[in-house]
Amino acid sequence: MAIKFARRMENLKASEIREILKLIENPEVISFAGGLPAPELFPIEEMKRVAELVLDEAGSQVLQYSTTEGYLPLRDKIAKRMELVGIQAKAEDVLITSGSQQGLDFTGKIFLDEGDIVVCESPSYLGAINAFKSYSPQFVEVSTDDEGMLMDELEEVLSTKKNVKVIYTIPDFQNPTGKTWSIERRKKLVELANHYDIPIIEDNPYGELRFEGERPPSIKSFDTEGRVVFLGTFSKTFCPGLRIGWVCAEKPLLQKYIHVKQGADLHTNGMSQRELDKFLELYDLDAHIEKIKNVYRKRRDVMMEAIKEHFPENLKYTYPEGGLFSWVELPSHVNARDLFLKALELNVAFVPGGSFYPNGGKENTFRLNYSNMSEEKIKEGIKRLGKVLKEAL
Amino acid sequence: MAIKFARRMENLKASEIREILKLIENPEVISFAGGLPAPELFPIEEMKRVAELVLDEAGSQVLQYSTTEGYLPLRDKIAKRMELVGIQAKAEDVLITSGSQQGLDFTGKIFLDEGDIVVCESPSYLGAINAFKSYSPQFVEVSTDDEGMLMDELEEVLSTKKNVKVIYTIPDFQNPTGKTWSIERRKKLVELANHYDIPIIEDNPYGELRFEGERPPSIKSFDTEGRVVFLGTFSKTFCPGLRIGWVCAEKPLLQKYIHVKQGADLHTNGMSQRELDKFLELYDLDAHIEKIKNVYRKRRDVMMEAIKEHFPENLKYTYPEGGLFSWVELPSHVNARDLFLKALELNVAFVPGGSFYPNGGKENTFRLNYSNMSEEKIKEGIKRLGKVLKEAL
Repeated sequence: MAIKFARRMENLKASEIREILKLIENPEVISFAGGLPAPELFPIEEMKRVAELVLDEAGSQVLQYSTTEGYLPLRDKIAKRMELVGIQAKAEDVLITSGSQQGLDFTGKIFLDEGDIVVCESPSYLGAINAFKSYSPQFVEVSTDDEGMLMDELEEVLSTKKNVKVIYTIPDFQNPTGKTWSIERRKKLVELANHYDIPIIEDNPYGELRFEGERPPSIKSFDTEGRVVFLGTFSKTFCPGLRIGWVCAEKPLLQKYIHVKQGADLHTNGMSQRELDKFLELYDLDAHIEKIKNVYRKRRDVMMEAIKEHFPENLKYTYPEGGLFSWVELPSHVNARDLFLKALELNVAFVPGGSFYPNGGKENTFRLNYSNMSEEKIKEGIKRLGKVLKEAL
Repeated sequence: MAIKFARRMENLKASEIREILKLIENPEVISFAGGLPAPELFPIEEMKRVAELVLDEAGSQVLQYSTTEGYLPLRDKIAKRMELVGIQAKAEDVLITSGSQQGLDFTGKIFLDEGDIVVCESPSYLGAINAFKSYSPQFVEVSTDDEGMLMDELEEVLSTKKNVKVIYTIPDFQNPTGKTWSIERRKKLVELANHYDIPIIEDNPYGELRFEGERPPSIKSFDTEGRVVFLGTFSKTFCPGLRIGWVCAEKPLLQKYIHVKQGADLHTNGMSQRELDKFLELYDLDAHIEKIKNVYRKRRDVMMEAIKEHFPENLKYTYPEGGLFSWVELPSHVNARDLFLKALELNVAFVPGGSFYPNGGKENTFRLNYSNMSEEKIKEGIKRLGKVLKEAL
């Protein structure tokens, strides 16, 4: 049997992170690898209450087929929350998706023909790279510093490459680096996108988890032409298991996402949409987020202190003001994949950074997650990792 | 602003059915249009119980990220149920999807490059046509009779067309025609697919809803080479709101679906998977299906009797032995879209058949659904429809 697949399947392989997560299912392993929220913070009792309520109040509706766009009151509540990042939106500007990963897949489907260019940060989110790869694009990586993409380099790309179809960015506590774009860069990005007439995908799963300082306005808040697509999710502020995210955009763009959603899975789980809506009605999501932030802030602190204590000096790493990740840069001759195997021998894990570079070629970085391990385990894990690093460097 | 979309977006338009469903949201309308299950049969009390149980027993797991493949005990139970249609499967042969619609989208992504050929029944399921269109294929429709695709015509296509990538079929109570393939045709289909080395997609959402007679073995039960992909769903036997379907296939094919699932939405809603698993553990799904069948059988009977009484004589229509649909063929000069508008004036709706033909050109058919209306409404609706038909013919 020699079944012929589509050409795009040649580009696809299993996500390295998800394969790593399988390797380290052993509970002995101290894992800084995933991007998992702390499960002890999930609002389980509240979920029990809202599950019962929505089944009592609207059981035959939540279990039935429903509209592709999503449950209207939930879309409305999300639209109102967009004000937090300076976006004036209405329910009709919001499409509910099965996690924001689905928004990424749809972005690829809507914009990318084979060979088209996606401009992204270097490094960029692995899940987005994998989603886009299904549509066989080329990736052009733009270098970043602590304020976001380098605008000169971006303009060079936009002015010389013909088939740039989207600019993809995670401006708040980026995955994998934990860095946040400055306001100036946000404005400049929109200016350049306007000039070269390119849509921007603003992927923002972590912005609400800011431990200190002020949350900057979203890139979309500077959008005067309806060219910024904002992707949001409840995976980090509520829970990921329900798979509820959203796309916020003006009608001409949102309509494309809605059409694609119809063919992709008809609509998002109706019961979970209603449960979330009921939660937002009965409880205070912001108070819940405050709780999450307090826990993650402490874990970030513990990790940063432990790194200072145990890692070799002069190693570059991010001190994140929020979100889930820090990012470590090793001397250029050190390969983090080799390091990963050594760390695993000591029952500690991280994600080697190589696969966050869509065009490859950088193996001397790795990502650390601090949201999913206790302070004790973070201390112990970083200590072990320090040992591995000191031996390797 | 002149944002450039991918070429595939030119093929996509909103699904006619979903647009019609919006038109007829008015509760006055007697609708034979959708493919909606009867909501009064949803196991709401049972859902309340299982929701509470899974949150008590495993709240922090069901709300967390989980594996792309799906919840193992649920995959195992599904694998065992495949025996009902003569398929020997293990948990590892099953991927949980967000409804079987997602299995259709993935099929397009895995197999179809622009211009590749999908062979399908004429007419075929609108949702599949729309899902495949995202990948810009050509459709070759094969004529059908009461036993399925005409095998001579199929062989003619397979032997002359170079780039056939998949054969797509709904062999049990087909959507839209309500017809079921004979065992001989099933065997012959596998034989031809083996000879021409083409994968078969067996989409089977309705097979478990058989009102009389014996359920034939699935096409996949005759598969000796691992080339048949079986798509199943709980949308018709349990409820659609949870969006739980599955793909059953051997590893080389299933692995592709798993890779594509990672990029598309990471995994299916974990809480709903667990709820369904718990339902299957605590309750008797087959007894529940029996209840559904009893209700639908009566509705089918009422519709068939009403058609006999009120429709013009000599109109061709399907007498379905199960599933949700009957299919009406009008004289070739009558346009069912015009008829639809006239029917809507009398507050009765159906789906014009034109869009079930991917290459268009047949407007003299329509689809009737009987699962979602009470017996009273079916009587009244068919009576009104009879009036419209008699005026038009």
